Amino acid sequence: MRWGRFEADGRIKYGIVREDEVELVIGSPFAGYEPAADHRPLDSLRLLTPAEPRTFYAAGLNYLEHIREQARSRGREPDLPRQADIGYRANNALIAHGETIVIPRDSEGPVEYEAELVAVIGRRARNLTPEDALSCVLGFTIGNDVSERAWQRSDRTLWRAKNTDTFKPMGPWIETDVDLDALETVVRVNDRETIRFRTNDMLFSVRTFLSRMSRYLTLYPGDVVWMGTEGKSPALHPGDRVDIEITGIGMLSNPVAAEG
Amino acid sequence: MRWGRFEADGRIKYGIVREDEVELVIGSPFAGYEPAADHRPLDSLRLLTPAEPRTFYAAGLNYLEHIREQARSRGREPDLPRQADIGYRANNALIAHGETIVIPRDSEGPVEYEAELVAVIGRRARNLTPEDALSCVLGFTIGNDVSERAWQRSDRTLWRAKNTDTFKPMGPWIETDVDLDALETVVRVNDRETIRFRTNDMLFSVRTFLSRMSRYLTLYPGDVVWMGTEGKSPALHPGDRVDIEITGIGMLSNPVAAEG
Repeated sequence: MRWGRFEADGRIKYGIVREDEVELVIGSPFAGYEPAADHRPLDSLRLLTPAEPRTFYAAGLNYLEHIREQARSRGREPDLPRQADIGYRANNALIAHGETIVIPRDSEGPVEYEAELVAVIGRRARNLTPEDALSCVLGFTIGNDVSERAWQRSDRTLWRAKNTDTFKPMGPWIETDVDLDALETVVRVNDRETIRFRTNDMLFSVRTFLSRMSRYLTLYPGDVVWMGTEGKSPALHPGDRVDIEITGIGMLSNPVAAEG
Repeated sequence: MRWGRFEADGRIKYGIVREDEVELVIGSPFAGYEPAADHRPLDSLRLLTPAEPRTFYAAGLNYLEHIREQARSRGREPDLPRQADIGYRANNALIAHGETIVIPRDSEGPVEYEAELVAVIGRRARNLTPEDALSCVLGFTIGNDVSERAWQRSDRTLWRAKNTDTFKPMGPWIETDVDLDALETVVRVNDRETIRFRTNDMLFSVRTFLSRMSRYLTLYPGDVVWMGTEGKSPALHPGDRVDIEITGIGMLSNPVAAEG
C-alpha cells in the first residue's frame, strides 16, 4: 500500500495511491483512518512530504564506498563507525517531491545529492529487539540528503551543510510492502544515471539501528530514520534535476535552482 | 507575561501565569488566542513543556569557562568556536518542569546538568538582521541539557549522551518580558548552590545566532534555541534534585532517578 500526504481543497489529507488515482481518507495511517469515498487523479493533488517527524533521524555514514569517498575528499583514512550511532537532520529543510532545491548565493560548493532509504515509524515504540524492530515501521520512502561540502568542512556542525532550507527532499509517498533485500537505488541527474547500488548493503541495518535507538529513546509515529547513502555525487548545478528511484518504492524527483 | 502550557481536563491548553493563578485561553501565543474566562490555581494543573518545537536548536559551546572545562576533561586545548554554528537536540528527550530525569541502567556516567537560557520563537522568520533578530522571539524559558559524559566521548554523535529520553527538561513557562543583560543563572543541587553566572555572558549572543541561522533556514513558531551553559556540573545521582533558576524567568526543577 502507498500512503501519500496531499494538499486537497486547501486542506492536508492522507490518501492511498493506486497507480494514477488517490483515495483520500479521513484521518491518517499514524492515528487511524476511515475511507472518505473521495477518489482523485494523482496529478490533480499537490504532494507534501509524507510525514512530519517529531524527530528527524539520520544514520549518516552507513555504506562502505561513501565512507571511503568522504575520507578521500578530506585526505584522510576512512574511519568506519564501530556502532550504530544515529544522527539528526532538521525539519525546516524538508521539501516534497517536485519542489525545488535552492542553492544559497554564498555557497562555495560543491552541492551534492545523497540518495537514502527512509524508514517511517508507524507506532510508538521503545526497547525493540532486532527481531521485532521492523514491527514499528509503517513503511519506507526516499530521501535526498543534499549536502554543501564546503560548509560540511568549515562549520563546527552540519547545520548549513545539511539543513539549509530545501536541502531535505523526502517522498514521494510511503510504501508499506517492501522487501528490503530486493531494493535497488538508482540516481539520475538530468536523466543520466550516476549511481546504482543495492539499497540494503548497509553497514548497520534498519533493524540494528531501530533496536539500538529504542533502547534509549522512544520512537513516535511519523518519526523518520534516513539510512545513509552509497558512493559519491557529481556537483549539482542550477537547472539540474535529481531523480532518486528506489525500486518498489517510487521516484523522488527535484529540480535545482540558484537563490534569487 | 508568562505563558505556560498545561494539561487541564484531559486537554492541552495554554494559559497566562499570574503568581499562583493561571488564566487558560483558547488558542495559543503562537497561533493567536482569546480569553476563556477560565481561571485555575497554578498547582491544580499539570505543567507541560511550554513549546513543542518543529526543530530543536542548541548552541552547544557558547560560554568560555564551560569550553575550557570540557577541553580539560578530555586532556585537550580549548578550541573556541569561530562562528555561531548552531547544533541540534531531539524532541523525544523533552520533559516538563517537575518530571523525572531517568539515568539508564548502563550509563557509566558521570551524568551532568547544563543550565541554559532558551529562546522560544514566536513567529515565522527568515533573513533577520542582528538588530531585529529578537523581534521573532516570543520569550524565554529554561533548559537543562542533561549530558552523559562517557557516551559523549565514546559515540560518533551526541544521540545517547544528550538525547536519551528525559534528558532535556524545559520550562516551567515562557517569560515574554526579559532584559537579557539583567539575568543571572543559578543552579542548586539538593538546595546547595553549585554555580551562578551572568546568563548573557555568551560567546555569541541570541541576536547573533538568530540572524545567522535565519540567513539559511526558516524559524517557525514554537522552535526553541538553547543557548549553551557555563562552568561544570557535579555528577548527578539518583535521588538528587536539580533546580535551575534564571532570575526574572523562573525555576526549572527536576528530580533524578535510576532506570528501574
